[in-house]
Amino acid sequence: MSSESPRRRRGAGRAARQARASATQAAAPYIRRKVPSYEVLDDAGLELIERNADRLLAEVGIEFREYPEALSLFAKAGAEIDGERVRFPPGMCREIVQKSAPSTFVQHARNPERNVQIGGDATVLVPAYGPPFVSDLDGGRRYGTIEDFRNFVKLAYMAPALHHSGGTVCEPVDLPVNKRHFDMVYSHIRYSDKPFMGSVTAPERAQDSIDMAKIAFGESFYEPQTGAPRCVLINLINANSPMVFDNTMLGAAKVYAENGQATVVSPFILAGAMSPVTVAGTAAQILAEALAGMAFVQLVNPGAPTVFGTFASSMSMQSGAPTFGSPEPSLVMYVAAQLARRLGVPFRSGGGLCASKLPDAQAAYEAANTLQTAMLAGVNFMLHTAGWLEGGLVMSYEKFMMDADQAGMIQKFHGGVDLSENGQAIDAIVETGPGNHFLGSTHTQQNFQSAFYNSSIADNNSFEQWQADGGLDAAQRANRRWKAALESYEAPPIDPAVDEELLAYMGERKASFPDANY
Amino acid sequence: MSSESPRRRRGAGRAARQARASATQAAAPYIRRKVPSYEVLDDAGLELIERNADRLLAEVGIEFREYPEALSLFAKAGAEIDGERVRFPPGMCREIVQKSAPSTFVQHARNPERNVQIGGDATVLVPAYGPPFVSDLDGGRRYGTIEDFRNFVKLAYMAPALHHSGGTVCEPVDLPVNKRHFDMVYSHIRYSDKPFMGSVTAPERAQDSIDMAKIAFGESFYEPQTGAPRCVLINLINANSPMVFDNTMLGAAKVYAENGQATVVSPFILAGAMSPVTVAGTAAQILAEALAGMAFVQLVNPGAPTVFGTFASSMSMQSGAPTFGSPEPSLVMYVAAQLARRLGVPFRSGGGLCASKLPDAQAAYEAANTLQTAMLAGVNFMLHTAGWLEGGLVMSYEKFMMDADQAGMIQKFHGGVDLSENGQAIDAIVETGPGNHFLGSTHTQQNFQSAFYNSSIADNNSFEQWQADGGLDAAQRANRRWKAALESYEAPPIDPAVDEELLAYMGERKASFPDANY
Repeated sequence: MSSESPRRRRGAGRAARQARASATQAAAPYIRRKVPSYEVLDDAGLELIERNADRLLAEVGIEFREYPEALSLFAKAGAEIDGERVRFPPGMCREIVQKSAPSTFVQHARNPERNVQIGGDATVLVPAYGPPFVSDLDGGRRYGTIEDFRNFVKLAYMAPALHHSGGTVCEPVDLPVNKRHFDMVYSHIRYSDKPFMGSVTAPERAQDSIDMAKIAFGESFYEPQTGAPRCVLINLINANSPMVFDNTMLGAAKVYAENGQATVVSPFILAGAMSPVTVAGTAAQILAEALAGMAFVQLVNPGAPTVFGTFASSMSMQSGAPTFGSPEPSLVMYVAAQLARRLGVPFRSGGGLCASKLPDAQAAYEAANTLQTAMLAGVNFMLHTAGWLEGGLVMSYEKFMMDADQAGMIQKFHGGVDLSENGQAIDAIVETGPGNHFLGSTHTQQNFQSAFYNSSIADNNSFEQWQADGGLDAAQRANRRWKAALESYEAPPIDPAVDEELLAYMGERKASFPDANY
Repeated sequence: MSSESPRRRRGAGRAARQARASATQAAAPYIRRKVPSYEVLDDAGLELIERNADRLLAEVGIEFREYPEALSLFAKAGAEIDGERVRFPPGMCREIVQKSAPSTFVQHARNPERNVQIGGDATVLVPAYGPPFVSDLDGGRRYGTIEDFRNFVKLAYMAPALHHSGGTVCEPVDLPVNKRHFDMVYSHIRYSDKPFMGSVTAPERAQDSIDMAKIAFGESFYEPQTGAPRCVLINLINANSPMVFDNTMLGAAKVYAENGQATVVSPFILAGAMSPVTVAGTAAQILAEALAGMAFVQLVNPGAPTVFGTFASSMSMQSGAPTFGSPEPSLVMYVAAQLARRLGVPFRSGGGLCASKLPDAQAAYEAANTLQTAMLAGVNFMLHTAGWLEGGLVMSYEKFMMDADQAGMIQKFHGGVDLSENGQAIDAIVETGPGNHFLGSTHTQQNFQSAFYNSSIADNNSFEQWQADGGLDAAQRANRRWKAALESYEAPPIDPAVDEELLAYMGERKASFPDANY
């Protein structure tokens, strides 16, 4: 025994290193979908919704509030301006978008091996965005802090099937509102090397995000041939549904577009309150809003990367609360994804949405229903893939680990059906013959290691073994997983000079704010 | 206040009656799918798998163990017999099946309003089948009893989106093995009026099931015009994968087929052990086994209703344990459903499968992944829709209620996108206008009651309200639901003379068995 111990220890060390390596290095930078998308409507149905969106843009129009620049851009492009209301001749927004918006683009990461394609047959899985609260089984529900923020950046960095560091993975409520974007952007750069999202809560915070990205990327911020800025940031610009964009969002979108960065234009809809209660009505409104927002981006800077976003939930008609994982939002997502494909632009939607207050069965049913829908809809940029709880109010450590496991399943599913000779496995069946088992067959031996997705959360053991292991539920196992992950975290390398410059920039900028702005 | 109380009480009584009525009466007898199915492979891929299945049937063949009658039937039909091994000329099984197997059929229920169509655009949601154990939050995990069996029949009867009473909803382990089928069949007849499944554990138990159905259905067991037996029973005939059928299953299938009852021929596969580790290999084997089994049924009685079944799980390569809700079984199910459609026969698969020992997040993720797959695959007979836990070893009261809620969502999803004027809701958007909400709009008022699926399990309230309500998780809410449902259960009417005859028949038959057979 004693002679074996050191070897075992070495073996264990190697295994741990390999686990780390496979988690953070060997993972595919994004998914290439080898399976078809699910098409819930035929062309006639989609054309009907497109006509309805055109009619809404022409008859109702969109309000661009307190943002005269949008009005003059649209007036010049041929729209009719009535106060802050803009009415668009049928087809106008579509033409503007289709004329210059790219169908796919690359978002560059600090580590070029993690660059992601957004659009086409690519799917990028992204953590949840926006929760002011965090929760875990030990500490319960509480306001998020910058430490929580860093933790989720680290966990996303280590998750093999999350391709992106996300944006506001939680609100660092312990930091002043007008300065926290610096620490968020810095954390994404410093604790991960995956691509990330910039701030949108004010135009100047958008500019700060870009300035920090310029420091982080250095020369590689620019295309070597043309000197044009590369896309290194993506954002989330919500419409104020129904049919309104506000000056904060428009101002931020303008900064990103002018700098060649990517804008996700995303109607944010609680159907029944912010859109009609029907799928077809909601889809037409979403298309109208997304078209207007994307047209604005293309007028600001033709060719700037832009993404058709959709966030639609249904509503409890008892309480008015948003509901998730239910059939109507799934139908909306399938339809919206089809509309985006017809338009020829990348599509964004969620993710592991749920209304539950706990990482329990409700959370999992709802998240899985939404994740499966997003997977088969062919979503290109799947925001809220991991961590989302309680209608997006809470970022849950345990839910994050469980959803990240589901992300791995989505990645595997998109590999599709292997129809090679090895995939067909006829020889294996001939070799094995009736009534025998395949465990020892040559084919099984050659393929078993990669054959089946290996869940990091599921317990598939016997009841007795599971009991002997403590009889834990999935959330309790996830609790152990995130702690172990954070313990084994190692930061990706960063040039110390770059880090210094980032810190100096932040210090200077922060010092320029009056403290009272907290 | 006092003058209002009586009215309120009357109102409450009416509400309760209406709730009961809507749960057990007004529910649709089955789903008519108004959405397309998901097609993961194109025709070329499916043809490849069909050719491979033909090759397996010709080169490897199928063993029909200890059942000479199958051998002589197949010899007469042109197959090559080698001991118990039967090898089929390419295309032979397909021809036999396509010549006489119906593409759709009706399974009649004791209450004709609950008749279900099996096949085509119909989907029938069916409880889990086979667990020897049951569990609930109060009593934990224990062997199933006839009381548990009755409870699950009652719960399925009351579940608005379960269309079928199922078969062995749990094993009544407290009853003798050789007599318990009487009590199971009787329970389905007595405590429900939905269609149900017959016993397959021995040919004579199949006959007993049919004899009891004849008593229950009386004259309506036969077609009034032709006098031919109606399909009132369906069963589950598993292949002993790989490539084997045994005499128990074949004997039972023969009894059902001869009596015009429906047979589900279902390869039961743990991929990696009972089939190759690949999707395409497993699919080819499933097709070969299903074709051979269905051909047997058609040779016994051309035209007897038969269903292409598939049960495929993946395997933990650490422990050899079956795993569920993972990407590979989903791909197998999508492919198998396509193969069944091409063959032109109804398709059966599961359902809310999972490996978890608890009704927790693991159970829910895995069940939802499988349910979503079965929904979009276009499964016609969705066995194991509700209740399944721990790889099918356990029927869980709480999981049953949670899955039955998901069944409602599946039903709603299949309604598809309403493209009527009302569905398009353009007037609602025009009327509401930018920045206003839809809650008070005419369209919302007219549609809100049926607009969104209303979950019986999800808690969508605020965190504070949820806390005030006891801070329960989904399983705890489900625990309250099944108890409340059983308390409010009312048996469907049955002719007392029929009931008497059933009891007399059972008494006589049971008395004919030696007690030692327990």
